[in-house]
Amino acid sequence: MSPLEGKVLVAQGGGPTPVINQSIVGVALEARKFSQVTSIYGAVHGVRGIVEENFVDLTRETTHNLEQVANTPSSALLSTRDKPDEEYCARMFKAMQAHDIRYFFYVGGNDSSDTVRIVNEQAKEANYELRAIHIPKTIDNDLMENDHCPGFGSAARYVAQAFTGVNLDNRALPGVYIGVVMGRHAGFLTAASALARKYLDDGPHLIYVPERAFDTDKFLADVDRIYAEHGLCTIAVSEGISDAHGVPMISKLMGEEERDDHGNLQLSGSGALGDLLSQTIKKGLNIKRVRSDTFGYLQRSFIGCRSDRDAHEAREVGEKAVQFAMWDNVDGSVVIRRPVLDYSVDYDLVPLSKVAGKTRHMPDNFINETGNGVTEDFMNYCRPLLGSNLPISHRLRAPAVAKILHK
Amino acid sequence: MSPLEGKVLVAQGGGPTPVINQSIVGVALEARKFSQVTSIYGAVHGVRGIVEENFVDLTRETTHNLEQVANTPSSALLSTRDKPDEEYCARMFKAMQAHDIRYFFYVGGNDSSDTVRIVNEQAKEANYELRAIHIPKTIDNDLMENDHCPGFGSAARYVAQAFTGVNLDNRALPGVYIGVVMGRHAGFLTAASALARKYLDDGPHLIYVPERAFDTDKFLADVDRIYAEHGLCTIAVSEGISDAHGVPMISKLMGEEERDDHGNLQLSGSGALGDLLSQTIKKGLNIKRVRSDTFGYLQRSFIGCRSDRDAHEAREVGEKAVQFAMWDNVDGSVVIRRPVLDYSVDYDLVPLSKVAGKTRHMPDNFINETGNGVTEDFMNYCRPLLGSNLPISHRLRAPAVAKILHK
Repeated sequence: MSPLEGKVLVAQGGGPTPVINQSIVGVALEARKFSQVTSIYGAVHGVRGIVEENFVDLTRETTHNLEQVANTPSSALLSTRDKPDEEYCARMFKAMQAHDIRYFFYVGGNDSSDTVRIVNEQAKEANYELRAIHIPKTIDNDLMENDHCPGFGSAARYVAQAFTGVNLDNRALPGVYIGVVMGRHAGFLTAASALARKYLDDGPHLIYVPERAFDTDKFLADVDRIYAEHGLCTIAVSEGISDAHGVPMISKLMGEEERDDHGNLQLSGSGALGDLLSQTIKKGLNIKRVRSDTFGYLQRSFIGCRSDRDAHEAREVGEKAVQFAMWDNVDGSVVIRRPVLDYSVDYDLVPLSKVAGKTRHMPDNFINETGNGVTEDFMNYCRPLLGSNLPISHRLRAPAVAKILHK
Repeated sequence: MSPLEGKVLVAQGGGPTPVINQSIVGVALEARKFSQVTSIYGAVHGVRGIVEENFVDLTRETTHNLEQVANTPSSALLSTRDKPDEEYCARMFKAMQAHDIRYFFYVGGNDSSDTVRIVNEQAKEANYELRAIHIPKTIDNDLMENDHCPGFGSAARYVAQAFTGVNLDNRALPGVYIGVVMGRHAGFLTAASALARKYLDDGPHLIYVPERAFDTDKFLADVDRIYAEHGLCTIAVSEGISDAHGVPMISKLMGEEERDDHGNLQLSGSGALGDLLSQTIKKGLNIKRVRSDTFGYLQRSFIGCRSDRDAHEAREVGEKAVQFAMWDNVDGSVVIRRPVLDYSVDYDLVPLSKVAGKTRHMPDNFINETGNGVTEDFMNYCRPLLGSNLPISHRLRAPAVAKILHK
């Protein structure tokens, strides 16, 4: 059987990551090695670019510029929040047929994975030969079947570096500090704040993730205890924390909601949750200096802070996607496995239905019993993902001088 | 005349910076070269540590650890917001006398400079020989007599890197983005966002600083125009923007205030201003995707993002402070001059009264005529301060593919 001849189409969907461009460059460079590939197109603004036939010809890019783009955060092919239904997919499919697209690679999260699944099914129904492969990315680290997701390590590194700075700042001018980290349903990224701990009294002292119901009274008791012990308290909170009934704390505290096109509550791009939690502490515990920062878009796009390991893996999932399609002639979702603890990865391809539209949560052994911190298991899991040369803090160790007036 | 023999005391005041520890290490290492220095003490938590005799002996630190601390952000000797009055200063003075402190170096902003001035005057009145020198630091860049202040370059670099990422993110998923940057009265740090521009259509497209009255109607017209042109709009706003009557926009939009111990309005540690401006745009222009991030404490303490030039200068102002005190036997405030445009600095010592308690603002030639952006003069001024190897963004340059269905 001769190999399937035609064009490759690659696109990016959903929120950007610091290393997502590595994956499209991995696709573009690897695909050029196969003679059955007639051209490599990129769709601009994800699936929307496909229905609008908004393609660029990546075979007319230079290798040098591709490499520079690979080292640039965010989605160089631009992105979309569109989540295609059957009719939308049918239009995509029509455009792909018109351009003789035979290989479709979509870099994205679980929504994007679901899009690949639908397109793949429609192609089968139409008897149109199309290889469709989902390439994983998400700073939330919430894709099923994956040990971890490309993009997570770099965002986790940003969060860890941020909390290292916060620890120093909050020690210099003590108070209660709340850092609100992205993560609607999965707490991995918030949990990564724990990697900022070096000294015994370093924060974050409390970490709240969406996997555990958030209880305001318990929260206040936690803060009260830490503040009494250390004279300060550093807290990491997932934007998606919810109460025991699954009601997001932001809507509970605010009573107001805003949803995006997918029906998701707007949690990012607003400092509301941090401010509401600050007020809760000020009122409940009568502590004067309470501050919050919402890390917002910085944690996924800040230039100059990424995990080298994450970048390499993001490149490799792009390459592997092409290899699975070309050598094995199969569809699916590329996943990352970790066969050894410290540290090596393998790549595999699983059926799209195993990843599409599903959310992976933090396993129980990553969260402490009291639901306000992480375990050593999580630390061991997360540490290698942050990459090499993580900046660390140092303290003075100069001895105290004996007092003369206040003996 | 034999040199004044006694101890050196060094302390840090006010908000931390990414390079403030360079200055205390500059003091500690330089002071060891002078035989009249019997010991070098550090005061813990600034002036508060002085009245409480909370000293550590920096002559019992290792050089290696001092160097590691110098490379760590935030105030290693810890800080304070205390602003001493005459009585407070008298207590400081008593502690210094008890410990035979003859050289006092205080690293801080204009409030700290004022403290040095009072202590200096009290020492003169009491006929107590004390050299008192203020060492500049502030991310706000608002100290009189200085071309720029240690700490600014690194914070400016963070802001520039953040907006480089924001540009990429807001291009991938277009909308209106507002980044709120520190700066109560001086807009230098917010203006540094302009250094994120590489491509012609890069943001920030609009920059609002406290030096110009903020007008909500003009703001909405600005955003409307940019959004119509680009389909997106990226905005940098100083936390301290105020209306024509000097009323801070945050209190105007919120009608609620919170002040710190100095009577300053709380502008940091809250996402309120960004959220209020977002709502103003959503309501006023009917744009759906409007997001804001408040850079908060990250811009002054994030580890792993600093200007090498800034770090070197922060070290040098510490060294020079010691040299002025020891070789010239004078008091004052160390200042940085820039005798040439690109790029060299000189250090000078000016009377404390020229810096103490005063605020420097952006000069008129740094702000554009319409008050919503910066000039080429500012770009030339700021660019070298960010240091070497600033990460930059790259875009794909692949040509568009001819449409088939939508011809």
